[in-house]
Amino acid sequence: MTEQATGEHAVRATVLGSGAWGTTFAAVLADAGCDVTVWGRSAATCEQIAREHRNEAYLPGIRLPDAVTATTDARAALAGAELVAIAIPSQSARATLEPLRDAFPAGAVAVSLMKGVELATDRRMSQVVAEALGLPDERVAVVSGPNLAREIAQRQPTATVVASSSDATARLVAQACASSYFRPYTNDDVVGVELCGAVKNVIALAVGISQGRGLGFNTMATVITRGLVEITRLGLALGADADTFPGLAGMGDLMATCASPDSRNHTLGVHLGQGMTLAEAIEATGGTAEGVKSSRSVLELATSVGVEMPITSAVVQVVHEGLPVDRLASLLLARPHKAEGV
Amino acid sequence: MTEQATGEHAVRATVLGSGAWGTTFAAVLADAGCDVTVWGRSAATCEQIAREHRNEAYLPGIRLPDAVTATTDARAALAGAELVAIAIPSQSARATLEPLRDAFPAGAVAVSLMKGVELATDRRMSQVVAEALGLPDERVAVVSGPNLAREIAQRQPTATVVASSSDATARLVAQACASSYFRPYTNDDVVGVELCGAVKNVIALAVGISQGRGLGFNTMATVITRGLVEITRLGLALGADADTFPGLAGMGDLMATCASPDSRNHTLGVHLGQGMTLAEAIEATGGTAEGVKSSRSVLELATSVGVEMPITSAVVQVVHEGLPVDRLASLLLARPHKAEGV
Repeated sequence: MTEQATGEHAVRATVLGSGAWGTTFAAVLADAGCDVTVWGRSAATCEQIAREHRNEAYLPGIRLPDAVTATTDARAALAGAELVAIAIPSQSARATLEPLRDAFPAGAVAVSLMKGVELATDRRMSQVVAEALGLPDERVAVVSGPNLAREIAQRQPTATVVASSSDATARLVAQACASSYFRPYTNDDVVGVELCGAVKNVIALAVGISQGRGLGFNTMATVITRGLVEITRLGLALGADADTFPGLAGMGDLMATCASPDSRNHTLGVHLGQGMTLAEAIEATGGTAEGVKSSRSVLELATSVGVEMPITSAVVQVVHEGLPVDRLASLLLARPHKAEGV
Repeated sequence: MTEQATGEHAVRATVLGSGAWGTTFAAVLADAGCDVTVWGRSAATCEQIAREHRNEAYLPGIRLPDAVTATTDARAALAGAELVAIAIPSQSARATLEPLRDAFPAGAVAVSLMKGVELATDRRMSQVVAEALGLPDERVAVVSGPNLAREIAQRQPTATVVASSSDATARLVAQACASSYFRPYTNDDVVGVELCGAVKNVIALAVGISQGRGLGFNTMATVITRGLVEITRLGLALGADADTFPGLAGMGDLMATCASPDSRNHTLGVHLGQGMTLAEAIEATGGTAEGVKSSRSVLELATSVGVEMPITSAVVQVVHEGLPVDRLASLLLARPHKAEGV
């Protein structure tokens, strides 16, 4: 059905999802030398990608490489692919992928570009991918790092983490996407990398709230640093590797997310910090944000394994329990002084 | 000569140095309940602090607590102090402190607020303090973290690290400065904390250069994250504790320094990134920056212990060897792809 990536031939890659990150990753793969087909639901978007090499709805003003094409026919997109990257909405991923199981090329590798946890099952996205497509873990990888789509689409230099339980799979994916502006590092800690991606949005909310209250860079750096400590604490309890957290998928992604004014979680937090109610903040942001949904499940998960997460807990109190935002800062700093560390 | 800090009495603290950080730390100590005397060379500044509780030259618009006073008489300032914090220029610290050795109160603790390395001797600032004042290491602490002075003077919440080889000393200092907006964590890794403070300025230069070239948050987060990896690598070779680097004195301080437009190293980097020569950038910044001076010694130190520091090396090439800044990004990302980690 498919040939393995060997020697100098161009890897045949498919990207499921024609949003900002799916389209951007297709451009990354093409710039790295792959032949890339994007699958999307919108005929207009697919036609624009295929004919004009643009995706104006998600990446206005960006010219995509010639080696990127697109189709609304998922089975046609998958045929012959050696690498299948998936960037579709987390909560509908299982329902989208299951019907494609028999069309998934034998021997191909699946790459999850998705963040978050499936709410109904608490499964990480790589688990959802493996289950829905019937793949062993060794044929699944995840990509995560300081990867704001628009900046990568502009070919600004960045690095990322390619994680898989199989080193061969991680290296195959890393080779397929490496270019002068996109530098992948491999990692075998899939749990840690995906946990960072899920919890970072909660911390981004806390940073947004503090900035909405007019607080500056010290507070931002303190919330991010202590936020990373509590993500690490949770990760260690769940079997992750301590080295992942100060790396690109942990601290790197957290920092890019918290610094960028484009991040939805950050923006919603700023609105809360300025004194809006949750409903008003969601309205002003143009929809809810991932961190609002996941904050309570993260805290429940932490409680179930006996881990303290004071920043996450404060965010849950503000977002879901009506704690006034002016009490957030003192709540974060009110614990008795103690030794630094996890 | 002095009484130990016990029970509820107000600790008598002295701050040597009336610049922005010295004055701010005096306010922090006063807000935490200490009686504080600032020593400075400028009679006008000391009089303004003592009479009007202001230091307009360094902290315009800030009202200092009533418990802060000031004098130009260093011996009078030291008399009866239990805690002596030192925030004077790094390269003249030894010469300033040595003549005060006999005036330093028996039993008092010295706290270094200074960053960097003494160029002539390669000694860290806590070592300079201990040697100049004739103190054992156990009576010296360092304070370092995401601590931009102006934001703390405005009482914005932040956290910091108090490091000492003596846990009792670290806790005494932490108690003396803890308040509702200033949260100290103790740490016994003095080497790691001081190394972070010295190398962060080199990384801030690299971040500034990339921002001066118009690059965004992904690049910033990548340079900071991979910068922290190379600081960690050097620290481990010098006997520091791995946990210090992702903490407040490492990642926290690095992030605050790189995010703030007020940081001198960052600003000088931006000017370089915009295409100025080093001489022009120094002129535009209103003086040189710590990272320019220390980049070469950090790289020499790394080479002497066999540690690779690609970002520091790139900064040295740009700053001291005339490498065009448009080659910096590709230089940072050009290494073969490999596993993440230290």
